[in-house]
Amino acid sequence: MSPVSFRDDGAAALAWIERYLETLRERPVMAQVEPGEIRSRLPASAPEEPEPFAAVLRDLDEVLMPGITHWQSPRFFAYFATTGSEPAILAELLAGGLNQIGILWRASPALQELEEVTLAWLAELLGLPAGWHGHIEDTASTSTVTALAAARAAKPGSRVVVCSEHAHSAAAKAARLLELDLRTVASDENYAMRADALDLDGACAVFATIGTTSSTAIDPIPAIADRCEAEGVWLHVDAAYAGSAAVCPELRPLFAGWERADSIVVNPHKWLLTPLDCSTFWTRRPEDLRRAFSLVPEFLRVQEDVVSLSEYAIPLGRRFRALKLWAVLRCYGRSGLQERIREAIRLAALFEGWVRDEPGWELCAPRPFSLVCFRLAASDETNEALLERVNASGEVFLSHTRLDGRYVLRLAVGNARTTEDDVRLAWDVLRREAGQLTGT
Amino acid sequence: MSPVSFRDDGAAALAWIERYLETLRERPVMAQVEPGEIRSRLPASAPEEPEPFAAVLRDLDEVLMPGITHWQSPRFFAYFATTGSEPAILAELLAGGLNQIGILWRASPALQELEEVTLAWLAELLGLPAGWHGHIEDTASTSTVTALAAARAAKPGSRVVVCSEHAHSAAAKAARLLELDLRTVASDENYAMRADALDLDGACAVFATIGTTSSTAIDPIPAIADRCEAEGVWLHVDAAYAGSAAVCPELRPLFAGWERADSIVVNPHKWLLTPLDCSTFWTRRPEDLRRAFSLVPEFLRVQEDVVSLSEYAIPLGRRFRALKLWAVLRCYGRSGLQERIREAIRLAALFEGWVRDEPGWELCAPRPFSLVCFRLAASDETNEALLERVNASGEVFLSHTRLDGRYVLRLAVGNARTTEDDVRLAWDVLRREAGQLTGT
Repeated sequence: MSPVSFRDDGAAALAWIERYLETLRERPVMAQVEPGEIRSRLPASAPEEPEPFAAVLRDLDEVLMPGITHWQSPRFFAYFATTGSEPAILAELLAGGLNQIGILWRASPALQELEEVTLAWLAELLGLPAGWHGHIEDTASTSTVTALAAARAAKPGSRVVVCSEHAHSAAAKAARLLELDLRTVASDENYAMRADALDLDGACAVFATIGTTSSTAIDPIPAIADRCEAEGVWLHVDAAYAGSAAVCPELRPLFAGWERADSIVVNPHKWLLTPLDCSTFWTRRPEDLRRAFSLVPEFLRVQEDVVSLSEYAIPLGRRFRALKLWAVLRCYGRSGLQERIREAIRLAALFEGWVRDEPGWELCAPRPFSLVCFRLAASDETNEALLERVNASGEVFLSHTRLDGRYVLRLAVGNARTTEDDVRLAWDVLRREAGQLTGT
Repeated sequence: MSPVSFRDDGAAALAWIERYLETLRERPVMAQVEPGEIRSRLPASAPEEPEPFAAVLRDLDEVLMPGITHWQSPRFFAYFATTGSEPAILAELLAGGLNQIGILWRASPALQELEEVTLAWLAELLGLPAGWHGHIEDTASTSTVTALAAARAAKPGSRVVVCSEHAHSAAAKAARLLELDLRTVASDENYAMRADALDLDGACAVFATIGTTSSTAIDPIPAIADRCEAEGVWLHVDAAYAGSAAVCPELRPLFAGWERADSIVVNPHKWLLTPLDCSTFWTRRPEDLRRAFSLVPEFLRVQEDVVSLSEYAIPLGRRFRALKLWAVLRCYGRSGLQERIREAIRLAALFEGWVRDEPGWELCAPRPFSLVCFRLAASDETNEALLERVNASGEVFLSHTRLDGRYVLRLAVGNARTTEDDVRLAWDVLRREAGQLTGT
């Protein structure tokens, strides 16, 4: 019934990915195309008659590949570097093959219960309290909407969400969707929220961060939790990037107080070897989520007495995302996960040391995890031009942020294939391009 | 660096799926487990040390499989039957391997532009107007939130969403999230919205459906569009299930007027051979979406002048979902897609005829597409008991709805592997169980 030979085409797809992963260092990390270039290479219409899968694979190479920015590359240091690990990639194949659609428990008991179990496993690995409700969302943006919708429902009439000026834009986006007012709190010299400046008047929620996107700053969770508990305000802790690091006991002090949150988000698709999409969400207050989201139409009313995961979130249908998280947790084990977190931090610390010791460069923020914020001791324009040159080289890919109004470069270590040589290359390319740019 | 051998474990995973797809008819379609049963078979904690991928595959068989409801089975007739086709499954493997994260254009030009191109291809295949903005959401629930958020932003002060009493619960869920009031309109004898009962006072949007979930009723779109245009109300057309059928020109009359909508959703993961998640969304008013969702933080501000797809929706990160849709459209072609839609409708019509001709059974709604609504001429309780017996047999899986207050069985044809023999089996099982239940 299918136009493809699953065996032959499958073997070809598998070999394609294997070769892709082996040749990552040969590819320009950031796509070197102009807007519209990929589109212009594609036909204007779908074909009338079936084409072989081999044609899809061929065009992946010949048409799309120049437009791929290689998130899997060990030389990808932009945003938060991630890894789609081999066990998780194969789990995505299995999930596609099984095509489970978890609209309610009986539509896939294994999907629902594996999601619950893997979330409990991960909570334990991260040192989170046992017994919280956990489920998987697609992204932290959606997790934020979920948390704030529950907070809004839990405290009617209070329409303010409070966050640091360095909070992720997801907080502002969710506030707009939910028609909540966003109140930003000033940050201290380390870009963390100033708890003494926290004004909870009219607030239904505080959106606090462990590991901000800009600089991986850590908001003072214990002090914030004190205030939230005293005033009955929902505390959401966004640890989308940094949360995975809590698998290492020596890093747990950085997460002090998060066990007092009402909800927590950690994205294994950032630093825990899982490809997008896997944003893990826990809450101690599942009934508030259900108040915001539960709605069981007649066609889903059945005899068994089980709360379906769709009652806690926006989507009715859910993919079998737990399968890839399960594969990662099993194929790495606690020890394997710890090893990779520690290595990323070691490499980032190494790079940080090189910047610190080099005249004409400066560090711009503390480095609690695996992100280094730094810049050339020069103007914003020069730093921006430097970044564009570095990225245009294709050798490595970095991104930027703005701290204290200044343009700052970010080097994020997080790809599990990254070695010391890759980080050294980034430093070499940065200095080479800086030299050419400034004529020194 | 990886604990798995991609080549060997990959071959095993591929063989696993191949065998799975070949043995679907041997498996009980609906999982025959009790709530908590799968959970109880899983360890309480993640392992300390790495385990081989073979152990994951083994436990997929030995632990999880009894909890899998087989959406891929040709004997799955519940909800809306779907197909994760082979080209799309392999595309999911590729997407996992590439791990593209489309947070902005430069993070993956190929992801963004292929998504734009495949949506244009699909719009053309379905006879939709050219030039609309299109992107992919995870589910129709999320697409509904996206559309209604834009409608709310486009007409400040108007806080009512109007829909048929048979509209999908996604409308009510989105209205709750967006704090809009839901006004339901009475339906006619065919379960379609009564346009003459449409009250648009204070409305920002009408949520109309082509192919309701309950009975695949078709709301009178041209009349609704007249009213919406006259009163400046956003018309959202939910064709999540039925929209795929518009690939057949002879079925286009059923979609009359949808080209006048402000936004349209069609789920290729329902009836177009694509595994979850692939909900395609088009709008003629992309600027209203951007007004609701666009927010570009500093760390994503770059030189190129391109609107990223994340500016039209809730999530910042997006998976490379276009890859599977591209593979499906190419490997089936227009002719292959039409063939499968027509065959599903032919099989549903056949089943409908058997019910019509059989004393003691009745049809309960018109059948414009591939869903048959029917029941035993007996009490609600008997029909409910019948459905539970049929599903407990494991031979086929059907679901139910309620029409005019009565409990109604639903047989949905949509799996591409379903043959006439499979539909005949469903009918045989239904009559056998009915006979045993009623003692006739």
